[in-house]
Amino acid sequence: MRNSRRSAVDPFIVMDVMEAARRAEEAGRHIIHMEVGQPGTPAPRGARAALARAMDKNALGYTVALGLPELRRRIARLYDEWYGVELDPARVIVTAGSSGAFLLAFTALFDTGEKVGIGAPGYPSYRQILRALDIAPVIIETAPENRYQPVPADLPDDLAGLMVASPANPSGTMLGREELAALIGWAHERGAALISDEIYHGIEYEKKAVTALEISDEVYVINSFSKYFSMTGWRVGWMVVPEDHVRIIERLAQNLFICPPHASQVAALAAIDCREELEANVAVYAENRRLMLEGLPRAGFTRIAPPDGAFYIYADVSEFTDNSAAFAAEILDEAGVAVTPGLDFDPVRGAHTLRFSYARSTEDIREGLRRLESFMAERKSG
Amino acid sequence: MRNSRRSAVDPFIVMDVMEAARRAEEAGRHIIHMEVGQPGTPAPRGARAALARAMDKNALGYTVALGLPELRRRIARLYDEWYGVELDPARVIVTAGSSGAFLLAFTALFDTGEKVGIGAPGYPSYRQILRALDIAPVIIETAPENRYQPVPADLPDDLAGLMVASPANPSGTMLGREELAALIGWAHERGAALISDEIYHGIEYEKKAVTALEISDEVYVINSFSKYFSMTGWRVGWMVVPEDHVRIIERLAQNLFICPPHASQVAALAAIDCREELEANVAVYAENRRLMLEGLPRAGFTRIAPPDGAFYIYADVSEFTDNSAAFAAEILDEAGVAVTPGLDFDPVRGAHTLRFSYARSTEDIREGLRRLESFMAERKSG
Repeated sequence: MRNSRRSAVDPFIVMDVMEAARRAEEAGRHIIHMEVGQPGTPAPRGARAALARAMDKNALGYTVALGLPELRRRIARLYDEWYGVELDPARVIVTAGSSGAFLLAFTALFDTGEKVGIGAPGYPSYRQILRALDIAPVIIETAPENRYQPVPADLPDDLAGLMVASPANPSGTMLGREELAALIGWAHERGAALISDEIYHGIEYEKKAVTALEISDEVYVINSFSKYFSMTGWRVGWMVVPEDHVRIIERLAQNLFICPPHASQVAALAAIDCREELEANVAVYAENRRLMLEGLPRAGFTRIAPPDGAFYIYADVSEFTDNSAAFAAEILDEAGVAVTPGLDFDPVRGAHTLRFSYARSTEDIREGLRRLESFMAERKSG
Repeated sequence: MRNSRRSAVDPFIVMDVMEAARRAEEAGRHIIHMEVGQPGTPAPRGARAALARAMDKNALGYTVALGLPELRRRIARLYDEWYGVELDPARVIVTAGSSGAFLLAFTALFDTGEKVGIGAPGYPSYRQILRALDIAPVIIETAPENRYQPVPADLPDDLAGLMVASPANPSGTMLGREELAALIGWAHERGAALISDEIYHGIEYEKKAVTALEISDEVYVINSFSKYFSMTGWRVGWMVVPEDHVRIIERLAQNLFICPPHASQVAALAAIDCREELEANVAVYAENRRLMLEGLPRAGFTRIAPPDGAFYIYADVSEFTDNSAAFAAEILDEAGVAVTPGLDFDPVRGAHTLRFSYARSTEDIREGLRRLESFMAERKSG
């Protein structure tokens, strides 16, 4: 049967690691998972309780396309609580995860063949979704001295849009207010759209993350209940758009999604107020990060980006390998630790990088670091 | 801020009806809802109980992109139970509702500018999703004497694909095995892709619906837990694709959706075995249909398509109006019954048609028919 050209999407290289880890576990080995991009914790208790109640008294049919009005209002209030930003709830759009938000944003903003800049290293699905929509991703190779974030000098003049992420995946680095303002200014001067991926907000360590909405209303901001709110599998996120884009997004959302999952919206609304449980999760990440920043260099991984937020550490491993996929396979095989080769995030330089995730339990992190340290010691001496 | 051309999506005309109905209810009027496209019933009891249990013991993180393996196996078994078709579970792809399936199917099959045939009247989002992907919908005006279903003679030669639906929305008519086989044969001869929307299967009255998989493996079949399984708001559906398309869809799904909602998949798996409750729902639709087929002609709506399945009746009202939107507004205003003007389903001939839904309670249907009858009697005499 026929196929489109646009469906020729790159495979995820991390899937090979995950499959190899699964096989090793099936064969009885114990594996520490530093490859996963999600919390090990469930949705907050209060969120699950709210859904259990709703299931008894509500048919949970379609919601309106932009999401439950009370959820949109509560998200708007979050911007006041988190950033002191006053936000009109009408500009908040509940989406089927940040994935749904990317699809809506790219469709609303860009036509076939237009160019959209995305930083490398970065979340691989940006470029794959753009390609599936026949939009042209332009890979911006960011500099380690800019903490793997794009700066205006990196950007070609003919972009129709620019995608930024802070804290970023895989680097965990953040854009400060000035850096973000410079990029927004660059976009506005050229009539390019700026989309700010803020899905790791709330998971930050030494300073608070800055939202693009502190700087301008003329941006798209994408966020999610997946990470800080620990609800990956629920597929619920949100987007804030300029006022005059709401109707456009509404029509697209009606047709492309009908609505985000109702049950997930009910759970998300309650999750926002489960502060104590969520902050306890962040305290675990903070301790894990402390251990990683101590343990990784001890093991020999010294060239790492400063992880301002999220739960990743991105390491330059060019002194050890020219082939990060083979190196990751070796680490899995010899040390029993699953890590992600950088190739998914940066098709060019990713052959020299690894991403370590510290989203799981502190016990696992301690054990993983012990294993990495002895593996690297043996490798050096071997 | 900039916008794409592809985001210029038509508004749903039914939304105006729904908004007018909401305002009337807010003002204290009692409205009978014959405009809605969803059951009034919740997910089956067993489905909700299964999710309540799962929330206590499972983090409900991401599933694999193609969906929970046990759900894919159970859906495959359903094809044996419903149609006597043996189906490899590897070909079953769980999706974020049928909406997610349309996005995946269209992206996997068609490139920018290619032509895809869709019958009119038909589900309006087909053409809107195609346009959002910069694919060209070709509207096939179907004939009442073909029960509003396309036949090969209707089809231009340059289609890259053809979308069919049985039972169809808004007409409720089905394609018999021969009619469906003729369309599949037509597509195969030309190397065009055939996509069969089967989301109303299970809701059928005098004969069983035929799945395209009874005729060929070289088709895309789309189905959903929304209608028969009464789970609209859960956003979970499925798709069956040819074996050599599974990997392509998997990569697209990983990037476009990550996974369908985990909680909804858990509920859906249990829903499949809630046969008794689901058949009781269908018995209600059957009784509603009987009342409609009696009551609508009595009210004066005599030119209706034979509703083989789903919960809609599509009526030609050209003897009463040239403007179905104004007529629907009049019916809402005078009779207190919300109905859908045909314009969403057929931009050309829909000015002369209305869709009546009988998805809600039998009590509502009786009252709605009483109101329609006296409204039409007064209109005639007035």
